Amino acid sequence: MKQLGILLSGRGSNFAAIAENISNGRIPARISIVISNRPEALGIEHARKLGLNSLVIPSKGKVREQHDAEVIAALREANVDLICLAGYMRLLSPAFIRAFPHRILNIHPSLLPAFPGLDAQKQAFEHGVKVSGCTVHFVDEFLDHGSIIVQRSVPVLDSDDDHTLAARILEQEHIAYTEAINLVLSGDFEISDRRVLRKSTLAGNRAL
Amino acid sequence: MKQLGILLSGRGSNFAAIAENISNGRIPARISIVISNRPEALGIEHARKLGLNSLVIPSKGKVREQHDAEVIAALREANVDLICLAGYMRLLSPAFIRAFPHRILNIHPSLLPAFPGLDAQKQAFEHGVKVSGCTVHFVDEFLDHGSIIVQRSVPVLDSDDDHTLAARILEQEHIAYTEAINLVLSGDFEISDRRVLRKSTLAGNRAL
Repeated sequence: MKQLGILLSGRGSNFAAIAENISNGRIPARISIVISNRPEALGIEHARKLGLNSLVIPSKGKVREQHDAEVIAALREANVDLICLAGYMRLLSPAFIRAFPHRILNIHPSLLPAFPGLDAQKQAFEHGVKVSGCTVHFVDEFLDHGSIIVQRSVPVLDSDDDHTLAARILEQEHIAYTEAINLVLSGDFEISDRRVLRKSTLAGNRAL
Repeated sequence: MKQLGILLSGRGSNFAAIAENISNGRIPARISIVISNRPEALGIEHARKLGLNSLVIPSKGKVREQHDAEVIAALREANVDLICLAGYMRLLSPAFIRAFPHRILNIHPSLLPAFPGLDAQKQAFEHGVKVSGCTVHFVDEFLDHGSIIVQRSVPVLDSDDDHTLAARILEQEHIAYTEAINLVLSGDFEISDRRVLRKSTLAGNRAL
């Protein structure tokens, strides 16, 4: 059984969706650790209620490399195969990325590269786009930047405000994260420049 | 009958689609002038074959303001209600924008604000996005920047190259441009900050 590590800083709604999709059989894995950098994160409380291995490693007052080293050690101790950021509000240091090559995923509530950074749904709403969505990507050293694994689009309606748009995107986030986790855990992918491609699809095409 | 002016610099495939959707009744308007800034543009040849009022106003060797003034004069002479850029490879001067407020449309083969500028489909392909599309927007003084009227998304497939992706986007461009032209010609829109909204939808919501 593959093992997931979850990093979060807040309510961790994507963590909750991952946990639910594990329990209903949609993700063939288990969560071996949930780590928050903030003691007050609601997500870590939720993890405890679910009886998961839960750890607070406070980032406050620590230099990034020191904090990352503690998180890396905890993830290794928990034997994680894949790390899922779920509202983890920190850039990872190069050493962190190198410790888990192509084994760290993040989800972002826009169709990247549009609207990176904070409040992506509000950015999209205020820009007046008619299509937005969400992106699951491998994490690299740059904000919301790594190779894209899954994107799902949603319409922006004339009747929307930024909250109704964010809610519509969130539904798709939960589906997209599950798809991306399953693809990466299956190992059925290769990376060509920035493109993440299904090996089985490519093999089918080459056979034609 | 509303009158359209078309500006192009190349083959003008979106011009051809507009002309076709006029002749099959999908756009209730007529084309009163087609202008190219390049004598060799295939689009202007196509316009002549269709028997449309066609004009080459060469931009080469002219300062922008002088060329724009000639184009503005020709558009006014042709009594255009709406100007559609169809692969017009020039930024419009502020005077041009002011001459036709909210009456100049452009189409771009990406989901703006992602991938502005040249070779948008190739930019998107190489970035590895899983969703791309096209955008029809009002033209302002900045490249591929004005308020968005219509966007349509398309999937990017593992089996794609940048040409198959561009072809899939182009199909949606023709639909999107027709939708946007009809919305603007109908007058059933208002602009709130950057958002272009259907007045009738808003009235319906307010009545609820």
